[in-house]
Amino acid sequence: MKIALDCIPCLLKQTLRTARMATDDPDEITRIIKETAIRLPLLMELPTPTHAGRIVHGLPRELLGIPDPYKKEKVKHTKIALEIYEKFKEIVQDSEDGLLSAIKIAVAGNIIDFGTGEVFDIYKEVNDVIAQDFAVLDYNEFKRALDKTDKILYLADNAGETVFDKILIEQLGKPVSYAVKGLPVLNDATYEDALMAGIDNVANVINSGSDAPGIVLDCCNQEFRDMFNKSQFIISKGQGNHEALSDVDAPIFFLMRIKCRPVADYLGLKKGDIILKMQNAVTCH
Amino acid sequence: MKIALDCIPCLLKQTLRTARMATDDPDEITRIIKETAIRLPLLMELPTPTHAGRIVHGLPRELLGIPDPYKKEKVKHTKIALEIYEKFKEIVQDSEDGLLSAIKIAVAGNIIDFGTGEVFDIYKEVNDVIAQDFAVLDYNEFKRALDKTDKILYLADNAGETVFDKILIEQLGKPVSYAVKGLPVLNDATYEDALMAGIDNVANVINSGSDAPGIVLDCCNQEFRDMFNKSQFIISKGQGNHEALSDVDAPIFFLMRIKCRPVADYLGLKKGDIILKMQNAVTCH
Repeated sequence: MKIALDCIPCLLKQTLRTARMATDDPDEITRIIKETAIRLPLLMELPTPTHAGRIVHGLPRELLGIPDPYKKEKVKHTKIALEIYEKFKEIVQDSEDGLLSAIKIAVAGNIIDFGTGEVFDIYKEVNDVIAQDFAVLDYNEFKRALDKTDKILYLADNAGETVFDKILIEQLGKPVSYAVKGLPVLNDATYEDALMAGIDNVANVINSGSDAPGIVLDCCNQEFRDMFNKSQFIISKGQGNHEALSDVDAPIFFLMRIKCRPVADYLGLKKGDIILKMQNAVTCH
Repeated sequence: MKIALDCIPCLLKQTLRTARMATDDPDEITRIIKETAIRLPLLMELPTPTHAGRIVHGLPRELLGIPDPYKKEKVKHTKIALEIYEKFKEIVQDSEDGLLSAIKIAVAGNIIDFGTGEVFDIYKEVNDVIAQDFAVLDYNEFKRALDKTDKILYLADNAGETVFDKILIEQLGKPVSYAVKGLPVLNDATYEDALMAGIDNVANVINSGSDAPGIVLDCCNQEFRDMFNKSQFIISKGQGNHEALSDVDAPIFFLMRIKCRPVADYLGLKKGDIILKMQNAVTCH
């Protein structure tokens, strides 16, 4: 997906949030915003919003030497999610279609607000998401492709959401490689974050090498690119991965909520919609 | 009020909206965004968000030669407001305290969404605002100051809102000078917009000279500055005027809704609060 004009103020807003996560020093935050602002015209020339996000979210790391501004938040979210893991399992076990329930739980992990930290609230939110209809649900295609493949490549999104992914991985019934980011970027899961969620008990956790807030293939290591290119079945979580891969011709199922208007426009859907969408690079624009 | 870091992405978002009002040409819109982006580090050094808004919202005018991108919207909003002017009057006439009702109607003009264009919806919205409590209501101070003064300086905000101001002006019972912007900026009322609302029937419409989205005294003409400095009673509508004048020691009553977090933080109030607040430059920070 090409970068939209609306992405530019949004990137600046995200940078401000990240800078505030990295430091309390207003001078340093101001410096990061200024350094971002002067790069914006250049960022507008990059191929996708994820490429631009890579530059923007790398700045606190480069300028302040703070490797992982979101670490505390990521640990908190993972802990909260682990506390209600057993409740998720019960939902899946009690449902008529365990796979579909697990898909809904996995997308709920992409949506819910960990802000309150109250387990009860989060459990309620997950149930609300489960009750929500998908705007696109290529479930039959998903099941057919799952039947045919002998292994799965699963592209992770945020820390905390990882625990929700674990529920889905346990329902897939095939060997899964769970690809995380190569460096900390936003609240995206790294290798360490995935281990904290216990993903290594259900999948092979692999480092994609990407330091963008999405799997930008140009930024990934060769090992990952080879695996990606050979994959017959890829699950891509979250909007960042979608932005990076929406024009890549590969057997991907995107599982996510649409969080902004440019992505909604690109897909011909609405902000807030949840989708399980088979990649169709030819008909997408 | 000093410019906040949160103002920077917000200014860029506003610029995008203005650019889209000014032209349909994506290349021209991109050019405006790029020109704005490279100016952002400089804008962060300006004394108030309104000073920065002046630069940003002047760019479509300078770069594209389009003097008033919001003209169509301003005319539409004024027409809609005029259609329900008589209904506002009835609300004031039927109320126990006509002045307070008129104040509430004037602040409603700063809040309501003209988007639908349906008179019924707008009338309902105005009634909702009238039912809302003020977070700050320096009404007794307002009445005392009004009693003492022999004339009023009224600082206009948006076109359309002007019609709501007319209702309040008619309740004030003293001669009013109604100060508008010197050049079109955002949807702020100019001389022409005020005439369309019929303000000249109830007040002396004057050109402040300011081409910022708020009364920035440095940008006003000498005649207006003299009038401002001699004024004993000033009503300032909307957040733009507040941002520009919050640190100016003058007998101002700010009548507005708080539309963003930096202003809420500055005033120690909440986003969405409506206020009639006597200027108190010493205790404000």
